[in-house]
Amino acid sequence: MSETEHGRGSGPSEEPLTPPDTRAPSHAERAFTLVASRSVGTLATVAKEPAGYPYGSFVTYAMHDASPVFLVSRLAVHTQHLEADPRASLLVAEDGEADPLANGRVTLVGEVRRVGGKAEVQSVRAAYLATHPGAAYYVDFTDFGFFRLEISAIRYIGGYGRMSWVEPGAWREATPDPLAAHAAGILAHMNEDHAAALAAYARAFTRARDAEEAVMTAIDRYGFEISVTTPDGKRPARLAFDAPIGTPEDARAALVGLVKRAREALAERDL
Amino acid sequence: MSETEHGRGSGPSEEPLTPPDTRAPSHAERAFTLVASRSVGTLATVAKEPAGYPYGSFVTYAMHDASPVFLVSRLAVHTQHLEADPRASLLVAEDGEADPLANGRVTLVGEVRRVGGKAEVQSVRAAYLATHPGAAYYVDFTDFGFFRLEISAIRYIGGYGRMSWVEPGAWREATPDPLAAHAAGILAHMNEDHAAALAAYARAFTRARDAEEAVMTAIDRYGFEISVTTPDGKRPARLAFDAPIGTPEDARAALVGLVKRAREALAERDL
Repeated sequence: MSETEHGRGSGPSEEPLTPPDTRAPSHAERAFTLVASRSVGTLATVAKEPAGYPYGSFVTYAMHDASPVFLVSRLAVHTQHLEADPRASLLVAEDGEADPLANGRVTLVGEVRRVGGKAEVQSVRAAYLATHPGAAYYVDFTDFGFFRLEISAIRYIGGYGRMSWVEPGAWREATPDPLAAHAAGILAHMNEDHAAALAAYARAFTRARDAEEAVMTAIDRYGFEISVTTPDGKRPARLAFDAPIGTPEDARAALVGLVKRAREALAERDL
Repeated sequence: MSETEHGRGSGPSEEPLTPPDTRAPSHAERAFTLVASRSVGTLATVAKEPAGYPYGSFVTYAMHDASPVFLVSRLAVHTQHLEADPRASLLVAEDGEADPLANGRVTLVGEVRRVGGKAEVQSVRAAYLATHPGAAYYVDFTDFGFFRLEISAIRYIGGYGRMSWVEPGAWREATPDPLAAHAAGILAHMNEDHAAALAAYARAFTRARDAEEAVMTAIDRYGFEISVTTPDGKRPARLAFDAPIGTPEDARAALVGLVKRAREALAERDL
């Protein structure tokens, strides 16, 4: 199975315990965050031999403005393809989930062209070497050059049942989630050390007033997601922060503030 | 940087300490082993919108005979592409090395067609579900079907400086290395517990008679590779088994036998 528009069989479909309009990252933001968090992907080009076949090759990339840039040799097969036909796509996939189809992935479609202009090359070079410092060893070889994917279409698949075509305008305006690099650490910390706080969030802020426990499954600048154990089984819920946050310290402050409000709400309920 | 034909900058190029014709897996065997050891890759298809662009999507696959097979929904974007144009490729990439371009990858180019015939479908289904047991949940949904990549060209890149086009005939005759799933465990065991044996291999069987130590870096049915610390720095060496081996137990017996011969050769040298 792979990317599909249908719902059947696409994993847990239980109704969430919080309103569906709880603020969450847009697909443009999710896609941009995913691509910005990775640095390897699959470049698909139009093969010269066998002519016209779509050809996938492994590439490293960096982000420069809102476009992936590549450092490739003109001797490489895909560079030869691109010089004959610039049409291409870059697939970037997350890893992490045991079920590979539960991971997110993004296909960026467009044309790959050589970066021109001395100032522009210098800027791209700095971005590329910041992401791939080991490339300093061959960046100045004469057969290597920088190329950029000029994006015209963006396909986002966030796992089962979360997929769309992202508007290029929304892509260009998106910024990577500032918590992305810290999310795994925050989740581990909350789930290991703050089970009581998570259960309080669930009881106070979701329809599951009798929640037994809750596990944090995701966090982003707009809020976080929990899997709540209820008498009827596990149910997902999303809670929003009052305002978007920018750092792990802000996240901590927001989570602490929410515990306080949750406990106040639960105490009031018990009166 | 990515797949290139050139040698410059392509990692360590020190002359090996053993003859270059020491028996090793063919590129067909290496490529087949890599593809058989994985179950996810990137399928490149010809897009319908934007029309004609090569489009990469994440897929799960299983091997059936010597071909990758896929279970896809006719609602999926790539299935719609394939129904209009069967030309495709599948890129499968290893992970593991810190330097992503040091990992192996294989591009299989060909045409993807629906598997037909009840017996053939049953056989493909069994192979697919053996690799992806979770797919049992949706395998019988009416919009899902099995497709096969009929391979016409194979590109193998084994990391820096090891790459070629593999003949389809050699691909079909290749079998996966029987040690592939055990190699990491054997390497860890040898490097943690048998440093003296590894040093003895290096001193007895390579040109590095004054080797200080050696680390095992790879093992396959035909032999193994070591990185030898010499007074001039680290040098690679490959040693072959007397005959191809089929199990981890055979590997152990072969490695023990080689230690004995190494110690005998070194004792003789000291006389």
